[in-house]
Amino acid sequence: MSNSSIFSAEDQLYMSLALREAARGLYGTMPNPRVGCVIVKNGQIVGRGAHLKAGEPHAEVHALRMAGELAQGADVYVTLEPCSHFGRTPPCADALLKAGVRRVVAAMQDPNPLVAGNGLQRLAQHGISVASGLMEAEARALNQGFISRMSRQRPWLRSKIAASLDGRTGLHNGESKWITGSPARQHVQQWRAQSCAILTGVGTVLADDPLLTVRDEQLLTARHGVQPYRVIVDSRLRTPCSAAILQTERVLIAHAQQLPQQEAALRASGAELLHLPDQAGTVDMAALLQALAERQVNEVLVEAGAALNGSLLSAGLVDELLLYYAPVLLGSAARGMFAIPALESMQQKLHLQVLETRQVGSDWFVHAKPVV
Amino acid sequence: MSNSSIFSAEDQLYMSLALREAARGLYGTMPNPRVGCVIVKNGQIVGRGAHLKAGEPHAEVHALRMAGELAQGADVYVTLEPCSHFGRTPPCADALLKAGVRRVVAAMQDPNPLVAGNGLQRLAQHGISVASGLMEAEARALNQGFISRMSRQRPWLRSKIAASLDGRTGLHNGESKWITGSPARQHVQQWRAQSCAILTGVGTVLADDPLLTVRDEQLLTARHGVQPYRVIVDSRLRTPCSAAILQTERVLIAHAQQLPQQEAALRASGAELLHLPDQAGTVDMAALLQALAERQVNEVLVEAGAALNGSLLSAGLVDELLLYYAPVLLGSAARGMFAIPALESMQQKLHLQVLETRQVGSDWFVHAKPVV
Repeated sequence: MSNSSIFSAEDQLYMSLALREAARGLYGTMPNPRVGCVIVKNGQIVGRGAHLKAGEPHAEVHALRMAGELAQGADVYVTLEPCSHFGRTPPCADALLKAGVRRVVAAMQDPNPLVAGNGLQRLAQHGISVASGLMEAEARALNQGFISRMSRQRPWLRSKIAASLDGRTGLHNGESKWITGSPARQHVQQWRAQSCAILTGVGTVLADDPLLTVRDEQLLTARHGVQPYRVIVDSRLRTPCSAAILQTERVLIAHAQQLPQQEAALRASGAELLHLPDQAGTVDMAALLQALAERQVNEVLVEAGAALNGSLLSAGLVDELLLYYAPVLLGSAARGMFAIPALESMQQKLHLQVLETRQVGSDWFVHAKPVV
Repeated sequence: MSNSSIFSAEDQLYMSLALREAARGLYGTMPNPRVGCVIVKNGQIVGRGAHLKAGEPHAEVHALRMAGELAQGADVYVTLEPCSHFGRTPPCADALLKAGVRRVVAAMQDPNPLVAGNGLQRLAQHGISVASGLMEAEARALNQGFISRMSRQRPWLRSKIAASLDGRTGLHNGESKWITGSPARQHVQQWRAQSCAILTGVGTVLADDPLLTVRDEQLLTARHGVQPYRVIVDSRLRTPCSAAILQTERVLIAHAQQLPQQEAALRASGAELLHLPDQAGTVDMAALLQALAERQVNEVLVEAGAALNGSLLSAGLVDELLLYYAPVLLGSAARGMFAIPALESMQQKLHLQVLETRQVGSDWFVHAKPVV
């Protein structure tokens, strides 16, 4: 394996095209990673492909099919190390060997530390020139959820919060519709659509009775019509069986107390229950995320109030913040963004790294991550 | 007087230069307006000048002196209608007449509705071609405080607030140093330096013991060494005589209760007291702003906590918001930005017009104004 210093400007170009291919799978490959592939022969692109749906061919297979016999002696650019194991499809490393390619450049190795490098090693053992690490940051950005699940056994977690410029998410009486404008809400549809699960608290269910589904038709089609899990954190099982969300499929309720009657009623309403108490008698958030990872959840979008956002933040479980600020003020009696234990010193303030700020309609989007 | 359709591209160019001249007086002309002047003869700039200090020559006089005999038959661009009355200096309209200029273009009329147009009219009556309204918005932006004092009998009021991204200005225990970084605090020095008064509440005095002075040497020099008034809203006269701010000059304390002993002690400490009670037994903010206007205060910068900012906002007295957000979170136990009566419906939310957003150091500056 080699470091990035060996990569040429052409290598960069072809890998950036492979990344663009990979992005086509943003909404549809779950639980698999998004992967793109470009095959180049004598300075001509002869094959390109993306993984689009779990169980269907991987990116390399699509690209090899397009290249046909031209794959012989060609260079292959792939955004993730080719697999070397039999999953739902045969190993891509074998397909590349069989096609007789000359060189394989991967943006990153397999994120599972137990198998990382195996695919490339297998190719190298058969005399193929291999390299890894070209545009790795961009490749990782496309698959943070998959990488997190493989390497940390928990999903990548984003908290989305819509707030006023004085940091308020709803009125004291619970009213929160709408603070931000419709372009911001459409923006959120995209975050939902690339997530495997939407996480909320029972407080939001009781106050807003939301569905938390992907409503945008195009996005839902890109997801092959499958809605993300909706996961309700509900320690005492206060979710009413009449809740709108229970009229939809793929609803999980994580609870702490054991209340057989409510449990039976909620199960009868179609929900799946997860009993995950912590020592304080509330839901063990780390255990919940682990349970979601076991269900192959890569990315979680939190759409909840200050209580759940605060406890996730305090527990160090928030990977990204998607903050939408509307040009309005609601005043100090309105609801805050993060209920966390009171800080006693400024040195305790939680630092954020701002990744991006931009206008969305008349609102302002701040994309940040907690500095750990 | 004519509308803007008669102005040429050259007119625009020369007025934009006159506006740049005017901006040189940003920190030094108070209580006078900032005014710039450019004199053009045969396509050549022959004179330019700015008003720099009250009591010293107006912009037109500086520019006429530079032009000398070339002013004869020249075109004059001035960012504010030339004065026609005797103040501390003789009327500029007379000086322009005497110099024999051909044409006078003003960006805006005198903001005092009782004298608006008089200066230009006087010139027109003597055969000079006059026009007004060229780049008026830019000219008004330079003198919002002066215009407000002339037309509304109250200063232009800006509330500066440094907050975390969850809208918190300090910890529950009052600690607030520092949320934003040093570039943002330097930015605030500029706002202070262009203000005639800094307004705060006794809560801030008790918690932070601030000076609220212009500390930057260059800015203070541009102010001719004169600090802005520091005005403390202190209904019950809780400001301790040991407060650091009382070691400085030009401190006003607005109170509601009459407490002869405290009043005498604070006067002995150098403060001037303003007894301005409202019917609720607190300080009448509208009356205070009127009292400041009577002291020729053009621009007020509020540097205070949620109570004072909230009451000014509720009273409709905030003209601009200078919001600095640091990339940190403080949590819902920390202090808010605006203590206002609780809203009962989203329809009551206070709308802001965002004028500008930009990065200042690692913080984010939002310049906004309440939509009235």
